[in-house]
Amino acid sequence: MQPNWLAQRSYLTPNRIGLSYNDKQWTFKELYDEAVRIAGKLASFHLDRGDRIALLAPSRPELISMIYGCMERGVEIVFLNGRLSSYELHYQIQDAQVKAVIVHEEEQHKLPEDTDSILFTEVFCAEEIKIEAVEEWSDDATISIMYTSGTTGFPKGVRQTVQNHSASAISSVLNLGLRDSDVWLCTMPIFHISGFSILMRSLLYGMHVRLYEKFDAASCATEIAEGSVTRMSAVAVTLERILSYMEERGMKAHPNFQSILAGGGPVPVDYLRRADKLHLQVVQTYGMTETSSQTATLSSEDAMEKAGSAGKPLFFNQIRIEGAAKPGDEGEICIRGPHVTPGYIGRFANRPAMENGWLKTGDIGYLDEEGYLYVIDRRADLIISGGENIYPAEIENVLLAHPAVKEAGVSGIDDPVWGKVPAAFIVLKNEATVEELLTFCKGRLASYKMPKKVLIVDQLPRNGSNKLVRRRLTELL
Amino acid sequence: MQPNWLAQRSYLTPNRIGLSYNDKQWTFKELYDEAVRIAGKLASFHLDRGDRIALLAPSRPELISMIYGCMERGVEIVFLNGRLSSYELHYQIQDAQVKAVIVHEEEQHKLPEDTDSILFTEVFCAEEIKIEAVEEWSDDATISIMYTSGTTGFPKGVRQTVQNHSASAISSVLNLGLRDSDVWLCTMPIFHISGFSILMRSLLYGMHVRLYEKFDAASCATEIAEGSVTRMSAVAVTLERILSYMEERGMKAHPNFQSILAGGGPVPVDYLRRADKLHLQVVQTYGMTETSSQTATLSSEDAMEKAGSAGKPLFFNQIRIEGAAKPGDEGEICIRGPHVTPGYIGRFANRPAMENGWLKTGDIGYLDEEGYLYVIDRRADLIISGGENIYPAEIENVLLAHPAVKEAGVSGIDDPVWGKVPAAFIVLKNEATVEELLTFCKGRLASYKMPKKVLIVDQLPRNGSNKLVRRRLTELL
Repeated sequence: MQPNWLAQRSYLTPNRIGLSYNDKQWTFKELYDEAVRIAGKLASFHLDRGDRIALLAPSRPELISMIYGCMERGVEIVFLNGRLSSYELHYQIQDAQVKAVIVHEEEQHKLPEDTDSILFTEVFCAEEIKIEAVEEWSDDATISIMYTSGTTGFPKGVRQTVQNHSASAISSVLNLGLRDSDVWLCTMPIFHISGFSILMRSLLYGMHVRLYEKFDAASCATEIAEGSVTRMSAVAVTLERILSYMEERGMKAHPNFQSILAGGGPVPVDYLRRADKLHLQVVQTYGMTETSSQTATLSSEDAMEKAGSAGKPLFFNQIRIEGAAKPGDEGEICIRGPHVTPGYIGRFANRPAMENGWLKTGDIGYLDEEGYLYVIDRRADLIISGGENIYPAEIENVLLAHPAVKEAGVSGIDDPVWGKVPAAFIVLKNEATVEELLTFCKGRLASYKMPKKVLIVDQLPRNGSNKLVRRRLTELL
Repeated sequence: MQPNWLAQRSYLTPNRIGLSYNDKQWTFKELYDEAVRIAGKLASFHLDRGDRIALLAPSRPELISMIYGCMERGVEIVFLNGRLSSYELHYQIQDAQVKAVIVHEEEQHKLPEDTDSILFTEVFCAEEIKIEAVEEWSDDATISIMYTSGTTGFPKGVRQTVQNHSASAISSVLNLGLRDSDVWLCTMPIFHISGFSILMRSLLYGMHVRLYEKFDAASCATEIAEGSVTRMSAVAVTLERILSYMEERGMKAHPNFQSILAGGGPVPVDYLRRADKLHLQVVQTYGMTETSSQTATLSSEDAMEKAGSAGKPLFFNQIRIEGAAKPGDEGEICIRGPHVTPGYIGRFANRPAMENGWLKTGDIGYLDEEGYLYVIDRRADLIISGGENIYPAEIENVLLAHPAVKEAGVSGIDDPVWGKVPAAFIVLKNEATVEELLTFCKGRLASYKMPKKVLIVDQLPRNGSNKLVRRRLTELL
């Protein structure tokens, strides 16, 4: 059991700032009082403790209120990604069997047409039912659910519990440190673990979150240079934009600024050198939805010597390489610790996340002599494009549904801006143009998942057992 | 399960300084390697995982090595207080049923004569048996046992587990914050939870502990003024000596210095004002052996407005006042959280520490409108003398064993240096002088527990059910 985080935080540091957005700010007491009000309003929609809802909204203060309201009510939140196609959203809503979909009016058009949803304004204007305060939260209660794909191409809904989030925040603080003056700049999507974990840290640390609806290099650079924020999460592509903006204007990081936590694949060494010149510390991290964010971290001081490494595990967790007999041996990366999801929901509810207490990530890597982790191949040929995970199998599944397509293979190709973008390789059984295929994909795939290149080929590279070898696809280019 | 802290810390930050003493210092890797060696040597004394030993030694690096060696071996440590009489030590050693007593040669004379002990040098010179490394520690494994008295006058051995110590360190870091540059000055006895908890924080945070064998105002003041340390634990009497030393020499706290954590009863407001002038932050705390140190903390910024308060609970724990219907109502202070001991050993092994999940401290207090805790009466009329806990019943038990004593009552009286000192009130059945009584007490009581005043009286104040009312004893003066 843990104390209700919202109530406890409001009790301990009522007057500290918990959230700001543009020129508005809210104390932890204000955030808690609002959460209690919204919990009472959710009750008037017959949403009870243990029920599950899906949430779709832009990253604005209303979203934070709604999230905290759901947490206060004890309602599990399935986070929907507004960049997904209505086809993809439909799958997740069905799979999660949510009791309601709560959607911000501006994003309602993204939902599948037949979705029975509750608008944000409907919740805010609803009657507030007096409900009993919950003093303690169970360690294994689910707070959030996020969908992530895998080898099958069917997204799996990953449960993140009270214990998962607190373990993650605690391990992180032992690594990064904490000051009263810390302010975490949040421009990552809240529906991703990279963004949501910032809110969890805020509640547990009593830390101010500076929220932006979208990433904007100018604002980030200015806040970093002025020292009005001290921490930030980023991916390589957003980091690069901040660096360029600061370089062009001769800006330097303020001494108050502590570090940028960079996830979603290794940061090019050149970026690190440039950051260093701006006095900007970059802490690289490896993690995933199943590990409630950060699981390994490479400190700034090690970044040059260990370029390309994801660092070492956080204190309360462990990493081992399946089948590795000695340092340097490659194998599947396995993770253990209180931050690892207990499992999935929906059609994968019966598939255990762990084997003998270890999460098998599907990623391939090795540990060097000193125990630094190197990730050499993301699972299922994962394509990381501007920090977003794209699973080839998901795109292939869509292409294979087209009547003219016989075989389809998708792989990432280099892109100067996004790191990687998906390219599709197609064997046809009937005639079809590339344009026809792309039109077919639209509406079925989020735009960032749309193949940026489509090549009609005679056959796909396959191994002895006739399995598609995605890493050899690019040889066809 | 948690990763073996010693191994994990050495793996994560091998080259960081973990301990220093005078002009010597040790990295976490050196500390771990030494712990492994000592674990192997302990094995040659047939000390195995789960066995229990008692430890008596001055606060020097050898003690830290021995502690870490025991932790690596998985041996439970009963911490003996070198200030206790051999009579008192005998009780604890017997009650704990330890497999061995490991003693530093300089303190061997303090042990009861018939004690079968192992000297520090014998351990250090023993053959090292190769033992298997333990990768994980169970949450409920006991690390340390410390004796504390209560209403009965019989000291109880309090178990502190892996989970207790990690929960305590984690809650503390969320309250105090953490920087890479933190160095904790340790002059508190290691056999007390106030000292031992500093070592636990060191392992979990990767933090440098600056160890002193004894408190010394000049050294502490100098380190604080030079910024070579950033944190310190103290009690009111040691704080005052540091303040005086700094005031006399016009010293100020270095900007790197973060705060003094002051336990063992409230700090007089006058000290806080003086500390403020020296730019010295004082964070007051309330805790006990059963809560593995800190459980409530009053921040420096609240110290003036809430003078006399022990502050608010740390994040993962809760405080309630038994029977209180509204703020301000007095009652027994009850504590809940993962830092609370699961229970006792020895003759109190079957007495549960908690009732319905709450530790009943025996202390009386109240929460004000904002939830700040005020401790108005320490349990069992506890006398806190220079930070040491003295239980009247323990002294009364000794006095009552004298053939001339009919009744005995002990209470604290004000003392300008120690805060409180014990005074004894005696009703005789046969003739005896005060000197005779004091001679009798010597050897049976630690010197700090010796009554500083003994008064022969006709009768003791008793309530309707004839129970001694200790708080009215001082009216007899």
